[in-house]
Amino acid sequence: MTACADTTLPLNDALARGWRAGFPPNPAAPVRPRERSIFQFPESRWAFSHLRELQPTRNVSRGSGPASPLARAERNDLDAVRFTPLEPGMPSTWADALAAVHADGVVVLHRGRIVQERYVGALREDGQHMAMSVTKSVVGTLGAMFAASGDLDPQAGVTHYLPELRDSAFGSATVRQVMDMTTSLDYSEDYAQADASVWRYARAGELLPRGPGYAGPEGFRQFLQTVPPRGTHGEGFAYCTVNTDVLGWLVSRVAGQPLAEVLSERIWRRLGAEQDAAFALDGQGAESAGGGLATGLRDLARLGEMMRLGGAFNGAQIVPEAVVADIRAGADPARFAHAGYTRLAGWSYRNMWWVAHDPHGTFTAQGIHGQLLHIDPAAEMVVARFASHPLAAHAHLPTAMPALRALAEFLS
Amino acid sequence: MTACADTTLPLNDALARGWRAGFPPNPAAPVRPRERSIFQFPESRWAFSHLRELQPTRNVSRGSGPASPLARAERNDLDAVRFTPLEPGMPSTWADALAAVHADGVVVLHRGRIVQERYVGALREDGQHMAMSVTKSVVGTLGAMFAASGDLDPQAGVTHYLPELRDSAFGSATVRQVMDMTTSLDYSEDYAQADASVWRYARAGELLPRGPGYAGPEGFRQFLQTVPPRGTHGEGFAYCTVNTDVLGWLVSRVAGQPLAEVLSERIWRRLGAEQDAAFALDGQGAESAGGGLATGLRDLARLGEMMRLGGAFNGAQIVPEAVVADIRAGADPARFAHAGYTRLAGWSYRNMWWVAHDPHGTFTAQGIHGQLLHIDPAAEMVVARFASHPLAAHAHLPTAMPALRALAEFLS
Repeated sequence: MTACADTTLPLNDALARGWRAGFPPNPAAPVRPRERSIFQFPESRWAFSHLRELQPTRNVSRGSGPASPLARAERNDLDAVRFTPLEPGMPSTWADALAAVHADGVVVLHRGRIVQERYVGALREDGQHMAMSVTKSVVGTLGAMFAASGDLDPQAGVTHYLPELRDSAFGSATVRQVMDMTTSLDYSEDYAQADASVWRYARAGELLPRGPGYAGPEGFRQFLQTVPPRGTHGEGFAYCTVNTDVLGWLVSRVAGQPLAEVLSERIWRRLGAEQDAAFALDGQGAESAGGGLATGLRDLARLGEMMRLGGAFNGAQIVPEAVVADIRAGADPARFAHAGYTRLAGWSYRNMWWVAHDPHGTFTAQGIHGQLLHIDPAAEMVVARFASHPLAAHAHLPTAMPALRALAEFLS
Repeated sequence: MTACADTTLPLNDALARGWRAGFPPNPAAPVRPRERSIFQFPESRWAFSHLRELQPTRNVSRGSGPASPLARAERNDLDAVRFTPLEPGMPSTWADALAAVHADGVVVLHRGRIVQERYVGALREDGQHMAMSVTKSVVGTLGAMFAASGDLDPQAGVTHYLPELRDSAFGSATVRQVMDMTTSLDYSEDYAQADASVWRYARAGELLPRGPGYAGPEGFRQFLQTVPPRGTHGEGFAYCTVNTDVLGWLVSRVAGQPLAEVLSERIWRRLGAEQDAAFALDGQGAESAGGGLATGLRDLARLGEMMRLGGAFNGAQIVPEAVVADIRAGADPARFAHAGYTRLAGWSYRNMWWVAHDPHGTFTAQGIHGQLLHIDPAAEMVVARFASHPLAAHAHLPTAMPALRALAEFLS
């Protein structure tokens, strides 16, 4: 892992605002659908808050009921909360940490009440921000729900549901190995390497421009069929986005619905979300299950609060309590250690949630540019944060942990 | 104008359902973004209800408040309402007329209460359907609102606000001529002609696939700059979509916001819409003001009810009463007669609404595939209808009028 907090690229709010205004489009720097990477800073700062303007999406309907209420008890003393950073020289107050990660917005809930809510950059309270890999935890929760209902057998082979994957690495994997990312794949997610598999994956799904003469896989699901095995499944955790795309496909297959509709029916409508969410689609109409969800920030906070409360929210048991307990219990930290995240020692990854195995019972969803849904049951705290840090790095979570722990103590 | 009711293409609901399911995508008939026309039946039947899955869109936020209530008084005797059709052999009951136009959904309000609501094809109550040229009446209403507030002077030249259009036909037109479509343009909207300007327009805006080596205008607004004049403005009504794109641009310019945000702030949020709407975007990020709005059906009905009530709805005066009165008063039928719509004799087109000048005070928004927002003030009736008739034809409105009048009498 690479530390990211030494990055000193400018926040460039002026540029973000310029694009945000969006009219007339800036001819010098148009963010054009599928012709230009939306993942590059500073374009990303605008693009992450405007997914729908850049490419096809499938709606995650909130239904037509009232939004679930979120009480407010806002306070102005959170910004100054101090902590000892992971490394000397890194930010040491809550406000500075938010700025350093290029947060586009944050909602902090304490005992279900909003104690802090802020929007910067190109995000507004009625906008939706790309959750990136926070999406994985949402899809993992859906997978665990279908496992709990018996519709999806975690011990079954993936090909029991998806014979299409027979010739890929997933042909020999179980559903559980996919759900906990203990598959062993010849697949690299090192964003720093130009030839990493993740870029080929992104071009297949048209998240990135393909360039002329493209002859690779058409869509995420065709790409999944090409992922070769490397070693033995089940031995160690290895963070690979494609596992979530397989899980999203599995969920769709057993539900008989597009993933976006499953999410709408099983969670979004019941949560009392105040906004529809959106799923990025590949050229074949498949959702980007590994990272394509965009939501409103308060809705992300509602999702976190529901998980904090054992799956019950808005007057309904939305996620079975046993599913939340299973996530909170985590997976085997020894398997997790295989991945070499030295700053997340003792953690595990279960149903696509990061589990701290700490006294607070902390579990977390995280995105590669600093997106975060952090649940601290002991402190009765939920932090939903969108961000567009210039670096795509798993280090955002470790560097955020001291701040999150200080905030939890401050609120407790 | 061509009668369309003799069209006997199959309704093909099975196909629509197949695409509707959308998972797994049908490899034999993928509806791919911007590679295939979404305007061709039967693809259109799916595509019109799934705009967001096909291309970039800008959100028209409903805000986060409660949806405005729509009372229900549903009755089952509307389907059988009989009328004398425009031509012998055409449908003669309300239900048959809905089927003949390939209605995807209908909401009939009487005195503000839902007396009929139905969804067929690929539309659901939580979906959004392309309103096509019903969009024009929405944009025309916004334009009239800015005119009423003094922000947009109808007597001013278009170039007073949009100097970019100096060298086009619009360079010599007034804002009013654009608002009432009495500009004289070298522009053909005859969908039956393969070389009609409207197709060049659609390719500029990437509503249609461009084909390799495309060298035409980039985006709607660049296209507008290329429209040549033909004759003298102000003499007669001529239905040309590009007028609405100019008006949408004017509204954006004076508001200093993207059109979608103007619509959200001025109407959608205040209406108590239950769903966000969506505006199709061209490759430059400009809304398709001439036809790119997609809305929920009940929200379209709310919009109609607001107009029926003189602009007041959901506890607020949303559109100034004088603006609604101006629309209802209509424009000069003599100018309208220039267009040769023999089946709409005595009508006019004002602020992009079709005005019947009949004893009922009827005014109407219509889309080229049978979309309709019909307001009959005397009968206290509003009909919102989405459709995907195989033929793009202005004849849908005239053929619908006998049915609408019979329904109005039946309800009165």
